[in-house]
Amino acid sequence: MASLPTHVRIVEVGPRDGLQNEARVLDVDDRLELLSRLADAGIRDIEAGAFVSPTRVPAMAGSAELMRRLVRRTDVRYACLVPNETGLDRALEAGCREIAIFTAVSETFSRRNTACSIGESLQRLAAVSRRADAEGLRVRGYLSCVIGCPYEGPVAGRAVADMTEQLIGMGCYEVSLGDTTGIGTPADIERLIEIVTTRVPVDRLAGHFHDTWGMGVANVWAALQCGVTVFDASVGGLGGCPFAPGASGNVATEDLVYMLNGAGIDTGIDIARLIDTARWVCGRLDRPAASKVTLAWRACARA
Amino acid sequence: MASLPTHVRIVEVGPRDGLQNEARVLDVDDRLELLSRLADAGIRDIEAGAFVSPTRVPAMAGSAELMRRLVRRTDVRYACLVPNETGLDRALEAGCREIAIFTAVSETFSRRNTACSIGESLQRLAAVSRRADAEGLRVRGYLSCVIGCPYEGPVAGRAVADMTEQLIGMGCYEVSLGDTTGIGTPADIERLIEIVTTRVPVDRLAGHFHDTWGMGVANVWAALQCGVTVFDASVGGLGGCPFAPGASGNVATEDLVYMLNGAGIDTGIDIARLIDTARWVCGRLDRPAASKVTLAWRACARA
Repeated sequence: MASLPTHVRIVEVGPRDGLQNEARVLDVDDRLELLSRLADAGIRDIEAGAFVSPTRVPAMAGSAELMRRLVRRTDVRYACLVPNETGLDRALEAGCREIAIFTAVSETFSRRNTACSIGESLQRLAAVSRRADAEGLRVRGYLSCVIGCPYEGPVAGRAVADMTEQLIGMGCYEVSLGDTTGIGTPADIERLIEIVTTRVPVDRLAGHFHDTWGMGVANVWAALQCGVTVFDASVGGLGGCPFAPGASGNVATEDLVYMLNGAGIDTGIDIARLIDTARWVCGRLDRPAASKVTLAWRACARA
Repeated sequence: MASLPTHVRIVEVGPRDGLQNEARVLDVDDRLELLSRLADAGIRDIEAGAFVSPTRVPAMAGSAELMRRLVRRTDVRYACLVPNETGLDRALEAGCREIAIFTAVSETFSRRNTACSIGESLQRLAAVSRRADAEGLRVRGYLSCVIGCPYEGPVAGRAVADMTEQLIGMGCYEVSLGDTTGIGTPADIERLIEIVTTRVPVDRLAGHFHDTWGMGVANVWAALQCGVTVFDASVGGLGGCPFAPGASGNVATEDLVYMLNGAGIDTGIDIARLIDTARWVCGRLDRPAASKVTLAWRACARA
């Protein structure tokens, strides 16, 4: 067996990346309860909201209220997505201590998702990062379409490596490599990480793998063998991407925890409470849980 | 990247292990069409039917007629499941050239599934194997519950190794290690193969991983790294197991082929035709395809 880490850090993105791509919108009360349940299940990194246009992303409306009302647990880090300096202002007003910034490796995806070129996007993010850093905020970077783009097709690993290095250079403590359309296979993930780590240390990388093509769990397993120890996941498999037609949600947090438990890798997460949370939030969204672990779970199960 | 094989042999078990665990029964005409479509998609090993009680397993009724009417392709191997000598007689009458025999590592599962102890089961199979060998038939072995049993819980790898060795000793050219309840994780699969290969060469093993807990594709990826190059799979993710409550079907053949294509591993299978077949058979069964690849597939997709 390849050498595996003893601990994996899971970044729960369901309350943001998940909810913003669901058909039904949850109100701030429900979103606060979701954050509370996730923390109770042992999640220590949560993407809690986003300071984006409430017209464009109705599910993230009220993120300022959410962050003001949130009773922060000292052992949990809450991040909010921030697309620009206006968003940063709102995040600062709401008392955020960590932000996430995002861009994409594909020009077309960038233009459709953020209405600017990659170059303009990087300039915008550099300004946000500088100010966030001056304010003492932690900044996490997201890079979308690291394997393929729904509009442009396959993406060059060298371009991913280059942009990852730029985001780290801006001050991101970590860059989350997003297979936004879930088209990547384990071999693709291995090849990508091999290229990116020629430019950036592996401990600055996170894997963010959508499960559209059923490869999410296998891709995490492959990335683990390459030394990646941080993974984004979405409770109940919430989410998808409106800019990537047909994309389903992130790999489900409980599927990931189940796999890691089998390898004796600690996540600090109580899978039974996590599954309860998946069922609860899917109930609030009036949709079935997308996760096979949640569907298969019974009291007698090994976990 | 770990050393990977250039070719993987996929054993399509949808027409037997899949169909016998579906709610709707297909008639012989539909089953013949399924076999024909699978062969046209490039599948070269197909489990076509079973000589079992039609009362107990209605989906396999007519296997004798199926095998007699089947227009055999010279480049495809068709196997039928045979539980005992009576089944073997019927298989021989129908012109079968390959049979599959099966037992389980768990006593309780064995008693519930085959109405005898493991010891009695092995005696029965030894008699079947001897006669099959004398008739010049190829014999493949199935071992169920290699990771866990729905009734007894975790299964010892040493017991799996011991029974695998016995099946090989009986004359099986290959033993398919079945994670019948799909409870295994990649780490479990690696540990198991490590133990079993202390007794049996890895090229005599096949992986048969159910996807109940969403680990199917990841488990294949893990087994590949351990040198396993033969995998059972079920088109459209057909199947489940009536003796393992809650178990869903085998890993879907198209999900597996998609992953292997990403690694440049040849299977000889045309994924587009395979997906057409998945859609067709799921239509005949009046159920949705369980495979994410079939759900995500579009003309523009990479494959």
